[in-house]
Amino acid sequence: MPRYRIVVEYLGSPFVGWQRQTSGLGVQQVLEDAIAGFSGEQVTVQGAGRTDAGVHALGQVAHFDLVKDWTTDTVRDALNNQVRPHPVSILMAELVNPAFNARFDAVQRGYIYRITNRRAPLALHQGYAWWVPVPLDVRAMDTAARSLLGKHDFSTFRAAYCQANSPVKTLDHLTVTADGPDIRVTARARSFLYHQVRNIVGTLKLVGEGKWSVPDVARALDAKDRRAGGPTAPAHGLYLSDVCY
Amino acid sequence: MPRYRIVVEYLGSPFVGWQRQTSGLGVQQVLEDAIAGFSGEQVTVQGAGRTDAGVHALGQVAHFDLVKDWTTDTVRDALNNQVRPHPVSILMAELVNPAFNARFDAVQRGYIYRITNRRAPLALHQGYAWWVPVPLDVRAMDTAARSLLGKHDFSTFRAAYCQANSPVKTLDHLTVTADGPDIRVTARARSFLYHQVRNIVGTLKLVGEGKWSVPDVARALDAKDRRAGGPTAPAHGLYLSDVCY
Repeated sequence: MPRYRIVVEYLGSPFVGWQRQTSGLGVQQVLEDAIAGFSGEQVTVQGAGRTDAGVHALGQVAHFDLVKDWTTDTVRDALNNQVRPHPVSILMAELVNPAFNARFDAVQRGYIYRITNRRAPLALHQGYAWWVPVPLDVRAMDTAARSLLGKHDFSTFRAAYCQANSPVKTLDHLTVTADGPDIRVTARARSFLYHQVRNIVGTLKLVGEGKWSVPDVARALDAKDRRAGGPTAPAHGLYLSDVCY
Repeated sequence: MPRYRIVVEYLGSPFVGWQRQTSGLGVQQVLEDAIAGFSGEQVTVQGAGRTDAGVHALGQVAHFDLVKDWTTDTVRDALNNQVRPHPVSILMAELVNPAFNARFDAVQRGYIYRITNRRAPLALHQGYAWWVPVPLDVRAMDTAARSLLGKHDFSTFRAAYCQANSPVKTLDHLTVTADGPDIRVTARARSFLYHQVRNIVGTLKLVGEGKWSVPDVARALDAKDRRAGGPTAPAHGLYLSDVCY
């Protein structure tokens, strides 16, 4: 039975998140319905990252099995046809080893958080970045980000309802860069706690505003207590950018 | 009576274009209503470029006069407050010489046309770029673009209902570049004919697809006949990027 790996782009706003849920439409369900629509087969699609409601994906990775052996071009094009009009796009489909698992074989996940830092509201790209009208000190944010790199107990940046077994994660990469008013926070790790990136971004924003000093972030991390961290940045600035295997 | 210059960003899709029209809402009217809303004054806003229905602006420039002397920060913030919920944003407001004219003093206008060139449809940024699924040869498009540089009779790329006195324009800059699937056509001139950029992009796309050769573009220009040119590219890929004075 052939196993397919797909790379998927989606807009977060219309969905309850990646996972199939009774409370609304998940991207997983859109894909499972699309697969049933073209192949007649009821399958479960397993994704690499269970993105939350409103979070976008540039390159979510998922796998599923089909009884029939279709060409990968057919799978990609038929799925893109079936998912309309939902804002979900299958960038690539390929055949993989039947032992491949999109979730458990991932060695690194990349997230990008976009902030537009300017006085004027967004006319273009509303819903694609967090609009922050107060001037942010990007260099201070980037310096503060460094204190979060490496292996730590990230309880300070963990949502109360996170289901991970342990709050210990290893953050491989965390930088804050700017191109004019466009600020980009890039985070990479094998895996993340629930809301970890958004809680880190909400905290780094406090540094950018000058409300927190750079050492305040290390102290918050050391507290291992969600109440010591900054607020959660909104979902619509966050993108699951890519998954490495 | 103080004259204000504003720089304006807007999404093209909800509007009939820049100009006030009876057929629907123009960006000019949104701004004139917003000015009346905060100042009580009925004014005419004069824009640098009369963008067509569906065309976006990153940096449209306009001017207007008010009897009362407001600070420029007040004008910018009050207008941004009044234009809600329309996707129009005032990036800057400044006082200018009362002789300044946003339309007639402009020495160069810049446009960007965005194409997303990939097999998969757009899930993110729908309505912000022209989706072209067939592979385009960007180098050939860029080479063909060079034959349009300089002063020419651009009748081949002029819409039938263009109101300009002469079809002769000087194209200062026209390049085609790519960053992965994102293709960008950049055009700069003192002024453009109606639909000139979109007709040029539609023609360059034929070169990118291999349907036209590079010399075919020069021959089409020489024909000085709209019927010799390629089709008009859709409005939603076009952005008025900036205006120089």
